[in-house]
Amino acid sequence: MKIAILGTGLVGQSLAGRLEALGHDVTIGTRDPEVTGARSTPGQWGTPSFSDWHAGHPRVRLATFAAAAGPADLIINATAGGASLGALSAAGAENLAGKVVLDVANPLDFSRGFPPSLSVANTDSLAEQIQRAFPTAKVVKSLNSMNCTVMVNPAGLPGEHLVFLCGDDAAAKQTVAALLEELGWAQAAIFDLGELTAARGMEMILPLWLSISQKLGTYEFNFAIARR
Amino acid sequence: MKIAILGTGLVGQSLAGRLEALGHDVTIGTRDPEVTGARSTPGQWGTPSFSDWHAGHPRVRLATFAAAAGPADLIINATAGGASLGALSAAGAENLAGKVVLDVANPLDFSRGFPPSLSVANTDSLAEQIQRAFPTAKVVKSLNSMNCTVMVNPAGLPGEHLVFLCGDDAAAKQTVAALLEELGWAQAAIFDLGELTAARGMEMILPLWLSISQKLGTYEFNFAIARR
Repeated sequence: MKIAILGTGLVGQSLAGRLEALGHDVTIGTRDPEVTGARSTPGQWGTPSFSDWHAGHPRVRLATFAAAAGPADLIINATAGGASLGALSAAGAENLAGKVVLDVANPLDFSRGFPPSLSVANTDSLAEQIQRAFPTAKVVKSLNSMNCTVMVNPAGLPGEHLVFLCGDDAAAKQTVAALLEELGWAQAAIFDLGELTAARGMEMILPLWLSISQKLGTYEFNFAIARR
Repeated sequence: MKIAILGTGLVGQSLAGRLEALGHDVTIGTRDPEVTGARSTPGQWGTPSFSDWHAGHPRVRLATFAAAAGPADLIINATAGGASLGALSAAGAENLAGKVVLDVANPLDFSRGFPPSLSVANTDSLAEQIQRAFPTAKVVKSLNSMNCTVMVNPAGLPGEHLVFLCGDDAAAKQTVAALLEELGWAQAAIFDLGELTAARGMEMILPLWLSISQKLGTYEFNFAIARR
């Protein structure tokens, strides 16, 4: 599948590297490919610079948001939540029309420091904002409630843990669920919460996720459910 | 321990019945004990009327909010979130001063139907509102992220699942943790998230909890964590 990943950070890199290894045709979209490609400063959390990462993943192409999204069958929004609507606008509504847009971003607002609040919550969500801005796109929310290492390697954690998804288009959700299975998620681990309004709950879990990660001292965990 | 439980609904009944069975001296607080005691209509979810429930639990006393809280060592807020500040005010600031107030309520707003939104979220929480309104009370948030059947019988679900707690007073959290252990929670299942600001995340998990319960068709589940 031709996949465009919008966002050059750790999440974008992780998904791009894994999806490329799985045989997909992956292009990372960014505002200015020359600037991104030349970026040699390490990432925020001591991760490799984009150019170092890219040197290890030469088959992943780097392009403008629009050039990445144009030929793509599926677009993944892996930008920071505050930048998502701008990045998708730069990708171009005509390049999103009729396509699956997998939104893995979280609307985290760090303007008042850590822990962040959400810039949208409760009666709305980032995923719904994206859907309203691009009504002919088929927005599916998933993968936002875990660290990127878990997204692409669920077997790295023991036991049964979950990846939620929601969206208004059943076929788009099936496409995303198939992609999740390729990433290693068992069918039973993929929890369809229903319509895109469920993205509110999926995004609102982030403050608890952050509190837990602070207490555990690791991001290497994921939510699970105990049930009878 | 002398325990006052504010709230006569399913949550208050469940906690009262179980804590009384554990040997505690339990009084349920309500606005008008005569009206509550005479209530013979079944509960919202087909549960027994208060008078039927009370007939089966004669050692649990029923009193006004203030009369229940006055002699209590520990007060549990099990009212509906929208009624909590009013109920605690009726209990009287002087009756809460210096005491542990265990807040198990959720600020669910059903005014726009189902699913509810939260009346406070993101940059504040019901638990923090209560703490600000009663600054000398020792507010601890816990048990809000599960059904009342799970609160009082964690062994009813398989596997390792969690009860979160948070609060600004370490001794008060120890008191609550000891009570949770009495209810059947293993020490390892009690997850201290830190200060009371973590109540934001604990309350914001409710929309996801509701989505999951709708999809599962049961409230008999609880959150767990998979970690390395």
